[in-house]
Amino acid sequence: MSDVNAILLLSCADRKGIVAKISDFIFRHNGNIVHADQHTSKKDKLFFIRIEWELNGFALNREEISAAFAPLAKHFKMKWDLHFTDYTPRMAIFVSRHLHCLHDLILRRHMGELAVNVEAVISNHNDARDLVEQFGLKFFHFPITTGNKRQQEIKELRLLREMNIDLVVLARYMQVLSGKFLDHYPNKIINIHHSFLPAFAGGNPYQQAYNRGVKIIGATGHYVTEQLDEGPIIAQDVIKISHRDAIADIQTKSKDLERIVLARALRLHLENRILVYGSKTIVFE
Amino acid sequence: MSDVNAILLLSCADRKGIVAKISDFIFRHNGNIVHADQHTSKKDKLFFIRIEWELNGFALNREEISAAFAPLAKHFKMKWDLHFTDYTPRMAIFVSRHLHCLHDLILRRHMGELAVNVEAVISNHNDARDLVEQFGLKFFHFPITTGNKRQQEIKELRLLREMNIDLVVLARYMQVLSGKFLDHYPNKIINIHHSFLPAFAGGNPYQQAYNRGVKIIGATGHYVTEQLDEGPIIAQDVIKISHRDAIADIQTKSKDLERIVLARALRLHLENRILVYGSKTIVFE
Amino acid sequence: MSDVNAILLLSCADRKGIVAKISDFIFRHNGNIVHADQHTSKKDKLFFIRIEWELNGFALNREEISAAFAPLAKHFKMKWDLHFTDYTPRMAIFVSRHLHCLHDLILRRHMGELAVNVEAVISNHNDARDLVEQFGLKFFHFPITTGNKRQQEIKELRLLREMNIDLVVLARYMQVLSGKFLDHYPNKIINIHHSFLPAFAGGNPYQQAYNRGVKIIGATGHYVTEQLDEGPIIAQDVIKISHRDAIADIQTKSKDLERIVLARALRLHLENRILVYGSKTIVFE
Amino acid sequence: MSDVNAILLLSCADRKGIVAKISDFIFRHNGNIVHADQHTSKKDKLFFIRIEWELNGFALNREEISAAFAPLAKHFKMKWDLHFTDYTPRMAIFVSRHLHCLHDLILRRHMGELAVNVEAVISNHNDARDLVEQFGLKFFHFPITTGNKRQQEIKELRLLREMNIDLVVLARYMQVLSGKFLDHYPNKIINIHHSFLPAFAGGNPYQQAYNRGVKIIGATGHYVTEQLDEGPIIAQDVIKISHRDAIADIQTKSKDLERIVLARALRLHLENRILVYGSKTIVFE
Repeated sequence: MSDVNAILLLSCADRKGIVAKISDFIFRHNGNIVHADQHTSKKDKLFFIRIEWELNGFALNREEISAAFAPLAKHFKMKWDLHFTDYTPRMAIFVSRHLHCLHDLILRRHMGELAVNVEAVISNHNDARDLVEQFGLKFFHFPITTGNKRQQEIKELRLLREMNIDLVVLARYMQVLSGKFLDHYPNKIINIHHSFLPAFAGGNPYQQAYNRGVKIIGATGHYVTEQLDEGPIIAQDVIKISHRDAIADIQTKSKDLERIVLARALRLHLENRILVYGSKTIVFE
Repeated sequence: MSDVNAILLLSCADRKGIVAKISDFIFRHNGNIVHADQHTSKKDKLFFIRIEWELNGFALNREEISAAFAPLAKHFKMKWDLHFTDYTPRMAIFVSRHLHCLHDLILRRHMGELAVNVEAVISNHNDARDLVEQFGLKFFHFPITTGNKRQQEIKELRLLREMNIDLVVLARYMQVLSGKFLDHYPNKIINIHHSFLPAFAGGNPYQQAYNRGVKIIGATGHYVTEQLDEGPIIAQDVIKISHRDAIADIQTKSKDLERIVLARALRLHLENRILVYGSKTIVFE
Repeated sequence: MSDVNAILLLSCADRKGIVAKISDFIFRHNGNIVHADQHTSKKDKLFFIRIEWELNGFALNREEISAAFAPLAKHFKMKWDLHFTDYTPRMAIFVSRHLHCLHDLILRRHMGELAVNVEAVISNHNDARDLVEQFGLKFFHFPITTGNKRQQEIKELRLLREMNIDLVVLARYMQVLSGKFLDHYPNKIINIHHSFLPAFAGGNPYQQAYNRGVKIIGATGHYVTEQLDEGPIIAQDVIKISHRDAIADIQTKSKDLERIVLARALRLHLENRILVYGSKTIVFE
Repeated sequence: MSDVNAILLLSCADRKGIVAKISDFIFRHNGNIVHADQHTSKKDKLFFIRIEWELNGFALNREEISAAFAPLAKHFKMKWDLHFTDYTPRMAIFVSRHLHCLHDLILRRHMGELAVNVEAVISNHNDARDLVEQFGLKFFHFPITTGNKRQQEIKELRLLREMNIDLVVLARYMQVLSGKFLDHYPNKIINIHHSFLPAFAGGNPYQQAYNRGVKIIGATGHYVTEQLDEGPIIAQDVIKISHRDAIADIQTKSKDLERIVLARALRLHLENRILVYGSKTIVFE
């Protein structure tokens, strides 16, 4: 347990003494805080914190921490999650025919840049199969037709459950997931949208950007909600374009952005740095 | 005339020999080209060029150039404009109560950064008067009420004509100009919009950005057309924000952007680097 | 005292319980923490924190806080500073002949963007006088020759003391200040360097950047130390350039950067967000 | 030959009529110019142009163009190169133990983003072998010791010649190539340096950046010359860091930059958009 840390992500109504009580809880059990970052929304009178401390020397076993913390959480009516830095989440990647984000995630995992296990790659097409299997990963093909969508989602969900998937990434997956599907993974499904949301929401943002003549394009990593392209935004980035950029050039530039923004959003999630708050995120970087 | 250049900005249907004919025209009259930049839209089969040459040693007087070039332009059915680098355009600035862009333009002019004469500052409020007069510039107050808008526009237009205004800049002017007004200055009115268009078009983009929880905000410099916020975009830039930024912080960050983007758009216009093409611009940087 | 906050900026050797003790101190006196951000340097085993709480309802008068906190600070051997958000620092600006940063600071102050009083503008030239006096500010001319530098510094220091200056900004001041001068304002003198330090330290960075053919230039806001251009960096920003940019263009682009970076560095200082640590800064944004 | 273009990259002393003569040459042979971009260095009185036209309908076969153009080139004492867009260059990648750039290049090639054939991957270590062979590419191991460097270079050169390599990319290759080696590939060897040159030239730029406390780090793609880290810069990009970033974080952020900057520099080279001029580049984007 030598280098493992505990991370508490919590929110509650703002009032006096919250930091004092939480830090006292950690101190009383002989914990050393290595990172603490708080945010207070004055407008909504809400308090948010991410606090990380070393388990090494901590008086409680990791199994005991939740029970010990619960009374304090109850007192302040906190919404909270406890994470440990040695847990490697189990991820499924959904993809269609544009494979650049999938490629990138596989390579980052391969190079040890992302602390996540890629348990399954799921697609409505077969294009990704060779690449996925070449890296020794599991590929599942769920073709979608106009008639079978609900049934396929049920099968996909069953597979995700069987594999104990913690986290789903939509790496340019061109199917809309139903609300029923999303309910199983609240704030656990990350999508990359190939525009600077809310600009060019909906279909074919490259074409939309070209038509409008914007001078900058972007990409957006966000949690998926039923309102398409309106989920809480985790990360965004942009790149300049000019009149010289035809749609194919816009696509090429955007693909670099999409890779980086998706990887960044995923890393923030994996490091437990995100609190969702309404349709927005608090990102403790 | 020692250091003066001529600049030709033109567009026409793409066909063979256009560059050859234009450059031959300049060469035959003993001109030295110092900058040439062309763009061909394959999709629309259109040709665009900006070509700049030294008048020093050129065989034609500046008054003779247009007539000499006209047959060639007619042959290729060109739309074209001829500019000379020693002409300093006469500009009017429209502003309401947010003065940061006005401030910035005045200072840039004062420091010699912008080759333009600020002939008039026109406002529907009196807030800017002191600053404007402090720098020895002329201030005109045209209050707008629900009933007098058309009449005030007529008076403003008369003033602009009397002052031989070439160019209007809307430096956070919160009134919508009528189509009739715009018709007098086609592609000669530059607006700064305080969002990354087309995101957050319309009113209160700071609030919209805050509500949506975007991680990046922007500003857009564009020519004004009747379709509000849909004119051809000249320049855009962005800056990162986070959950820590309240609306006042977003405003502070945005104001820096707005100054810079407006100044950049204006400079591109003053240097005759922009060709408008449908709802888009070609910017020869 | 309704909206005033107290801000504690402190550092000490890292050990358990620091956050708990500080937050308990605030909570015991009925304070409400509105912002807390900590950083732990694992490598150097050092702890840094910025913590801000409301004085409204706090049990101690602002005059009593330091004495009440001192025992805790002594126990942990803290280096600490206490600030109040209603104190407006008194600033002197040093400038030579490039006035764009001075201009910018004066305007931001004029528009209420910076919570600082510009008490004096000091220059080794007279170029800035008109502008400074036009805005009703005090201008002092201290011409520097090869022989009089030390004497002029003594006079400048006397003036700064008489005016109770808290903070000095070098807004493109082209004289090197002596170590003796700097000793009077440790981490209280901010300089803007017109390059992306450590690239192009020393003289004429525009020319250096042009000669080297870099594709991006930058500007750096930093605290001044005796080692020229090696003081702790507060803020940096960059902009793209190309082969088309002659030295004059590089200068024009850089001047926009310099304004923004200096204003950002100054704002971070004024908001008490900076802890200096060796030759580096911790910036709690 | 339907969609093939010819590209002329040339430079010469600036004088009147160059554009006219070149465009007339193309027009006389019935060529349609699709892109022309020129640059004139006023300071050095030099002229640079990139001009691209369609071979479809052009009166000369591609084998005849050079001979037909030679008299004109001789008259103006031009340095020039002629390229055709259907030629796919043959590239060798040199790499040591950091494989992220290699990975990225292989994937981009695999996805069809780069018009280049990866003929060989050469390394002084064996780390890259599995990945390279997994993608069906050829891997060559040339271990370097203190004594064998010159001999290994001779063998590497022989291999490059046998494989008709046009272009070498150093994708984080940690050996310095000798001047004799470089002489065989003038302006044909591209390196990625993991800093914003000229800042942090030499070894371990991540550590240097950390120690200096900069707020932005960068990466630089450049042609390799004998003066280490001083070759003509093709592309640079940067990313923000903060006091929170330990060296491992700086490395992670930098690796994203390095991939993108190397890919961008390579693409500009492959599209024949670069003219080298002394220690600088003209990049016709």
